[in-house]
Amino acid sequence: MKTLSKILIIGTGLIGASIGLAAKRAGVADCVVGVGRRQTNLDAAIERGAVDYTFCDLADAIRHDTTNNTTNTDELIIVCTPVGSIVEQVRNAASLVKQPTLITDAGSTKSAICEQLADTLPNSCRFVGSHPIAGSERGGAAAGLTDLFDNRTTIITPSANSFAADVSLLENFWQALGSRTVIMNPQSHDRVLSRTSHLPHLLAATLTNLLTPHEREFVGTGFLDMTRIASGSPTMWHDIVAANAEMILDACSSIVTNIEQLKSYIEAADYENVTKLLERAKTVRDELGR
Amino acid sequence: MKTLSKILIIGTGLIGASIGLAAKRAGVADCVVGVGRRQTNLDAAIERGAVDYTFCDLADAIRHDTTNNTTNTDELIIVCTPVGSIVEQVRNAASLVKQPTLITDAGSTKSAICEQLADTLPNSCRFVGSHPIAGSERGGAAAGLTDLFDNRTTIITPSANSFAADVSLLENFWQALGSRTVIMNPQSHDRVLSRTSHLPHLLAATLTNLLTPHEREFVGTGFLDMTRIASGSPTMWHDIVAANAEMILDACSSIVTNIEQLKSYIEAADYENVTKLLERAKTVRDELGR
Repeated sequence: MKTLSKILIIGTGLIGASIGLAAKRAGVADCVVGVGRRQTNLDAAIERGAVDYTFCDLADAIRHDTTNNTTNTDELIIVCTPVGSIVEQVRNAASLVKQPTLITDAGSTKSAICEQLADTLPNSCRFVGSHPIAGSERGGAAAGLTDLFDNRTTIITPSANSFAADVSLLENFWQALGSRTVIMNPQSHDRVLSRTSHLPHLLAATLTNLLTPHEREFVGTGFLDMTRIASGSPTMWHDIVAANAEMILDACSSIVTNIEQLKSYIEAADYENVTKLLERAKTVRDELGR
Repeated sequence: MKTLSKILIIGTGLIGASIGLAAKRAGVADCVVGVGRRQTNLDAAIERGAVDYTFCDLADAIRHDTTNNTTNTDELIIVCTPVGSIVEQVRNAASLVKQPTLITDAGSTKSAICEQLADTLPNSCRFVGSHPIAGSERGGAAAGLTDLFDNRTTIITPSANSFAADVSLLENFWQALGSRTVIMNPQSHDRVLSRTSHLPHLLAATLTNLLTPHEREFVGTGFLDMTRIASGSPTMWHDIVAANAEMILDACSSIVTNIEQLKSYIEAADYENVTKLLERAKTVRDELGR
């Protein structure tokens, strides 16, 4: 891809810092700038080598000019804050830039965000949504990983009005960071992710909450693996649930239906069907690998 | 503990082989004998260093005499087969021994097994149940690990008629293998494990089966961690579900109730309670560690 003059990462948590690290590894930009609220986390991002410059103020970060020593002019802004503040951050950034700029995000939901940003943005900026399917239950810049996106999938969700060149730039960008890319509409994205990510998170939390203090002593590695994601940030997950409520409710209903089906097999001592269910799950899970 | 003359492991899969490896590391027996149906797996157990001698025939394995070169006389038989065949294997072994012998198992359910073995066993043998809470989605002797029981918990489930000396021997044995030990009655064991292990397994399988082939492309590390145990042996898990059906049904009902509760919060846009639920889960899961 054509080298960018500057990548501006708004929110240098795990995802933001990992984007910085992978972008620097790929050499896709002359300069990576990070902006965030907490100075200690910005310091961690610098120390981790994820960004070149940090700012607490978005206007300062946008004003930071790197064109003195480069002929590259394209900039990319990536909003990596929790889902609930992405729209506001995109609008803020668009209102502050001096040239029309492509803005993307890394949020785990897409419909509500893309809908709210479908209107014309200030300064002729364009928003196209992204979602790198990668992460960890840990947070903060210090947890950032250069290879977080390697062999993972990033979903890009253009709207009907998106420019092909913007979509293409984002494909090249995420691929340069190590990821596969898939184009999908925001609604399909939210439906798929409600089942592959949002429901699993809520199940892990629900399962964790089910245990009495006494029972906690008797968990094995299976339970620990299964509930690890319940350590994720409640703020981040609150936002995801709120932004994708309808699809998540639907996914919850599906899993309840399937548990009830399993219960009816067990109640009827129909172990042939219990075994079929276990065998099917093993086949699928073995295929998923790792 | 007083060194045993012989440990006989019936079923040298992941658990049986790991017991052999940990027992040899601890030097708790003059000799470890493995018995199993498949010669290739017995060969793997020898190669892995988990056992000293292997037999396909239980009578041969029991006849194998190590007292020539030792003054130790106590033997311990551990049945490590799937839950559904433990009772039969214990009775077979008891009918073949030449001296009254303590027999234990490593099964994931205890009520049904201990109840069926509460009657007098042949040759004055005594059965006391054990359940080392350790394992993996992999199986077979080649997957055996010397440290599988280190810092894990083994639950020992004596009946009202068990001898204190037998319970004490098992405590010392499992502790020598690296495990903590807890004494519990079989019913309490099955109730706790239905919630810490059996329900999680069934949820992992149900969640895996929920995905369409298209959706499988979009799973992240969270989903993979959460469903890893769904790769476990369907035969083994069939037996566990059949042996602990009542408690498992109860656990299934509890999780459904909690998912319905969560759904009602989301439907009412009551995100304060969604956040509370997520925060509680994070606190508990962080405390569980690893």
